[in-house]
Amino acid sequence: MLDVEIDKVSSLSSEELASLGEMWRRCAGRIILSTTLARSGHPGGSLSSLHGLLVTYASIRKRPAEPRWEGRDRVVVSMGHISPAVYAVLAEYGYLSEDEFLTGFRRAGAACSGHVEQVVPGVEWNTGNLGQGLSAGCGMALAQKLKGIDAKTIVFMGDGEQQKGQVAEARRFATKFGLDNLIAVVDRNHLQIGGSTEEVMPVNVREEYQAAGWNVIYVGNGHDYNELFSALRRAWLHEDLIPGRPTLLVLRTVMGKGVSFMEGKAKYHGSPLPPEDAKKALSELGLDPGLLDQWQERRDAATDVCKAHEVEHPYPHIEVGEPREYGADVKTDCRSAYGNALEDLAKLNNGGPAPKVLGFSCDLEGSVKMQGLHSVSPNAFIECGIQEHHAAACAGAMSCEGFSVFFSTFGVFAVAETYNQHRLSDQNGSHLKIVSTHLGLDVGEDGPTHQSIDYIGLLNNLFGFSIFMPADPNQTDHIVRHVASVPGNCFVGMGRSKMGVVTTEDGKPFFGKGYKFVPGRADWLRSGGRATFITYGSAVPYVLEAWRLLKEKGVEVGVLNMASIKPLDQDAIEKAALAGPIVTVEDHVPHTGLGGLVAQVLVSRGVAQRVENVGVTHYGGSGKPADLYAAQGIEPGALAARMESLISE
Amino acid sequence: MLDVEIDKVSSLSSEELASLGEMWRRCAGRIILSTTLARSGHPGGSLSSLHGLLVTYASIRKRPAEPRWEGRDRVVVSMGHISPAVYAVLAEYGYLSEDEFLTGFRRAGAACSGHVEQVVPGVEWNTGNLGQGLSAGCGMALAQKLKGIDAKTIVFMGDGEQQKGQVAEARRFATKFGLDNLIAVVDRNHLQIGGSTEEVMPVNVREEYQAAGWNVIYVGNGHDYNELFSALRRAWLHEDLIPGRPTLLVLRTVMGKGVSFMEGKAKYHGSPLPPEDAKKALSELGLDPGLLDQWQERRDAATDVCKAHEVEHPYPHIEVGEPREYGADVKTDCRSAYGNALEDLAKLNNGGPAPKVLGFSCDLEGSVKMQGLHSVSPNAFIECGIQEHHAAACAGAMSCEGFSVFFSTFGVFAVAETYNQHRLSDQNGSHLKIVSTHLGLDVGEDGPTHQSIDYIGLLNNLFGFSIFMPADPNQTDHIVRHVASVPGNCFVGMGRSKMGVVTTEDGKPFFGKGYKFVPGRADWLRSGGRATFITYGSAVPYVLEAWRLLKEKGVEVGVLNMASIKPLDQDAIEKAALAGPIVTVEDHVPHTGLGGLVAQVLVSRGVAQRVENVGVTHYGGSGKPADLYAAQGIEPGALAARMESLISE
Repeated sequence: MLDVEIDKVSSLSSEELASLGEMWRRCAGRIILSTTLARSGHPGGSLSSLHGLLVTYASIRKRPAEPRWEGRDRVVVSMGHISPAVYAVLAEYGYLSEDEFLTGFRRAGAACSGHVEQVVPGVEWNTGNLGQGLSAGCGMALAQKLKGIDAKTIVFMGDGEQQKGQVAEARRFATKFGLDNLIAVVDRNHLQIGGSTEEVMPVNVREEYQAAGWNVIYVGNGHDYNELFSALRRAWLHEDLIPGRPTLLVLRTVMGKGVSFMEGKAKYHGSPLPPEDAKKALSELGLDPGLLDQWQERRDAATDVCKAHEVEHPYPHIEVGEPREYGADVKTDCRSAYGNALEDLAKLNNGGPAPKVLGFSCDLEGSVKMQGLHSVSPNAFIECGIQEHHAAACAGAMSCEGFSVFFSTFGVFAVAETYNQHRLSDQNGSHLKIVSTHLGLDVGEDGPTHQSIDYIGLLNNLFGFSIFMPADPNQTDHIVRHVASVPGNCFVGMGRSKMGVVTTEDGKPFFGKGYKFVPGRADWLRSGGRATFITYGSAVPYVLEAWRLLKEKGVEVGVLNMASIKPLDQDAIEKAALAGPIVTVEDHVPHTGLGGLVAQVLVSRGVAQRVENVGVTHYGGSGKPADLYAAQGIEPGALAARMESLISE
Repeated sequence: MLDVEIDKVSSLSSEELASLGEMWRRCAGRIILSTTLARSGHPGGSLSSLHGLLVTYASIRKRPAEPRWEGRDRVVVSMGHISPAVYAVLAEYGYLSEDEFLTGFRRAGAACSGHVEQVVPGVEWNTGNLGQGLSAGCGMALAQKLKGIDAKTIVFMGDGEQQKGQVAEARRFATKFGLDNLIAVVDRNHLQIGGSTEEVMPVNVREEYQAAGWNVIYVGNGHDYNELFSALRRAWLHEDLIPGRPTLLVLRTVMGKGVSFMEGKAKYHGSPLPPEDAKKALSELGLDPGLLDQWQERRDAATDVCKAHEVEHPYPHIEVGEPREYGADVKTDCRSAYGNALEDLAKLNNGGPAPKVLGFSCDLEGSVKMQGLHSVSPNAFIECGIQEHHAAACAGAMSCEGFSVFFSTFGVFAVAETYNQHRLSDQNGSHLKIVSTHLGLDVGEDGPTHQSIDYIGLLNNLFGFSIFMPADPNQTDHIVRHVASVPGNCFVGMGRSKMGVVTTEDGKPFFGKGYKFVPGRADWLRSGGRATFITYGSAVPYVLEAWRLLKEKGVEVGVLNMASIKPLDQDAIEKAALAGPIVTVEDHVPHTGLGGLVAQVLVSRGVAQRVENVGVTHYGGSGKPADLYAAQGIEPGALAARMESLISE
């Protein structure tokens, strides 16, 4: 345990150096032991970054017994595969026990995963998908700034990882937002799985960061404590550096450092030592080679491995205010209703020293209607540019910092482009609110590259995401206020076009006064009849018009609106199926969307019924939404005809 | 029509300059007309890049009547929203008619989409999702080099687009592969939708390209033909430039150039002029303002708008050789079988001056078993580093150039991370073969960030992709040879672990001699019985063991292997359902995977039957695959018990 006051002392004392040396020896031993015991893992990069990690942990403000103390400095490890080094150091500081690490590493049911996870106290962010850690670190550093916490965020990255494009995006974001409390550290061992980084894919690391406006400090020997401390201290105090800018430390290191026969060998990136070699390594480190067999016995005996610790990120209390009501004669788009609700939320919640409701935009502020929030609380509006990968990951990380974070862009960018970022956020227990506009063929003239017709198919794979699809501006208002008020990940989707307000049969707003949005509860827009349209979102007006056409002909059918796609109102679907045949209608691929979901409910409930699916069955064109819809059979007359024919079968 | 021999003349003649001026006037007019007629579109960037496009099209080797002539120079327009400028120039050269453009622009059923698409002759690549064009251009430039075609690829990009991380990946790739035939052109008008690029997200464009090792030429006036020509010529001839390196031209331009009241206004990025303003603009250009009304009439009258032209990219004839057979006693992984088959394909097809079978890797050559192909034909092995977004898009583009392209990495990177790149490739009519290893919980100790449990859920949204999941090494061999032999996009997925060979009841390899893989045909691994397990991939051995346990107890059930997920053998599923209850088993989220698909077949076929789904219902941990499977109920004893209980219900 070391606590160096990096902002007060100019160098490490000889006692501290000796202490670091002893810590290093124990940690290196744990790296060898853990990977050999697990018969898998990444010892090479763990050893190359160990000195840097040790100096960093010695210097940060930390409370191992209270790992999520708000005043702490953060350490994000983006190359999650160096988990042996991270766990080894955390064990040194008492965040977790050596026993938990060595008996549980890479073992089902235990906390110490192959890639670092927050279920291990002291780990700030689950990583493993390379290139996302700097974005998460940007989110944390910006959160510290917004909350007025004088603390640092330090992000360790591999050098192979510098190839990922998202890192370039995060770099620019850090510069734009003046994150001078952010320190990135690259473990420059010049090796990746495939061999030399120069052969696999050369990156001029320092030049690239400099081009992005960063301060860059080169540490010629990344295994020298004094050199490491002096560089870290310079970054910490921002000495002789461009003010208001983040800082990169490049540590020139050696893969497998400290074990003679591992040094500089790419194969140890991802391969553990066999037991005999591990014993040799322990001897070289001045440790007892018998430790391996002892730990092997303890590991074999530890049948009840430690369970993962619970992680729950804070979520703020959000005042949602009163819903706005759009009258039956109003014609507007759901986007504007979203923007209005978001502006209300900003007014109600962002008056304190730190805003509570944040909006992330990717150069589409006007299109996604974030101008209201922007003008009400400028520091809550976070414009990321056309950098969706970074924006998604950064928003996910900020949503774990006590903010209600809205991330908005077109569906193609909000889901298809950034699915893997949301997946990692979901695994991190984030509370992200994705509000996506311009979904489906309703994007119109922008054409197929911009048509998001797969958002349910994608997001339905992520266990932590709710999926809500409002039918009109009123329901949008209710849903946006709802998602702001609850923790967890939520997706709210809408099209682009203006639409009328959905009304009851007697012409009153359906989602007006007295309506309350309840997840998992569908809306019978029209009830009764011997068959049912089941629909949601932009398709609703088309279905209601089909309903009217049928009614005129004396054919009574129901219309069920599934604004809550996940959780799904299975009872309502069963009820519809028991009443008669079903036509599902959606601005989405039917077999991965509502069409597929309805089939699953019928089979799981054991209800046999005829179902027809209408939706997007081929890439759409570029034109007016109504024309694009018509080409796929989403047209009132066609829908009515299809329903009639189904009924009469 | 202009054909300047850029490699022979040192400057433009006064006739050529005059001609460019006239072309510019007509094209600028078309930009104004098309967007005002469509009431949407992007005139601002179209005007800022028009001079550059005109000089480029004047200089390239082209055959407008034979737009896909192999010796042509390529022009990829990555910021697809400047389609009005592109179509205007293509109309100038006769690739399409002015009438087709102005009556069909942004109109359902017509070719001239809002973002450029290949259905317009002369367009090389569909774009619109920013940041992907340079990757596609890299693929084309590398294809030219591999095929020994002495031609250039020129990629136009917006400056806002420089924010996208994928551009950074593509830059490095171009440097690594020595693409000195690649010229990137950035239209530096300093404006994006949200306003000034400096305010939205600053990028030091020239510094970033220089840091990546590119040649950079700055054109201070991107509207001056002489300056443009001289810079393009320097890049073309590689004069005073770093040899073997790609070149960037940065054109300093003005948004809306040429129409006084549009110049420098961000709003014209994505907004057309209202008719009155359009007429003013036409007057300013020296054109007849009456053109607008004339074209409006013609557009209104053109009820039968031109249909999109067919695009079919070449696919090579591939010799597939004889399948390898793995004996009943062999235990290996499907990855090795893939690697062996790929090596065979390389030996059989890569002997000519240009290879036919290419392998794209993302720093996982050893894990995805591409070493065989690499050693057989080194120039066919394309190592992209940890740059999956670029790799996927580049591989997609190369698959349209007469190669059989295999793209291999872990499932999380091959699908979840790169879904949107595959989506765009699919829309471009690519012939990509994604062979993904390490799918599912079978990735084991690498933990949840590496667990790809959603590949069907994702790829099932892409209309052009087949999805194949071999059950063992023998079936892998057959499927790999099959996909190499056919055009179109195919996904082949497999786990990480070694497994036994699937055998018949009497112990012979099931997929041995005499077996032929047929898409859309399922395999009855065990037939008969009063219930059926339906499964695929890594779950097969677990199900076969459950089958054995049940058989020992006298319970006869069938086992149906769905190696072809898409197309799906609906008849086989119906047959199973008619025989009795079904248990689906998969290393995937069931409701987005086989579980959901089976339900849809039952409903569409009108067969009522009890179905239970076993699969991944929560994020897995880090440990041995068998332990992770057991935690989700994928374990022979549990599967047998579940089947028994379902039968006895």
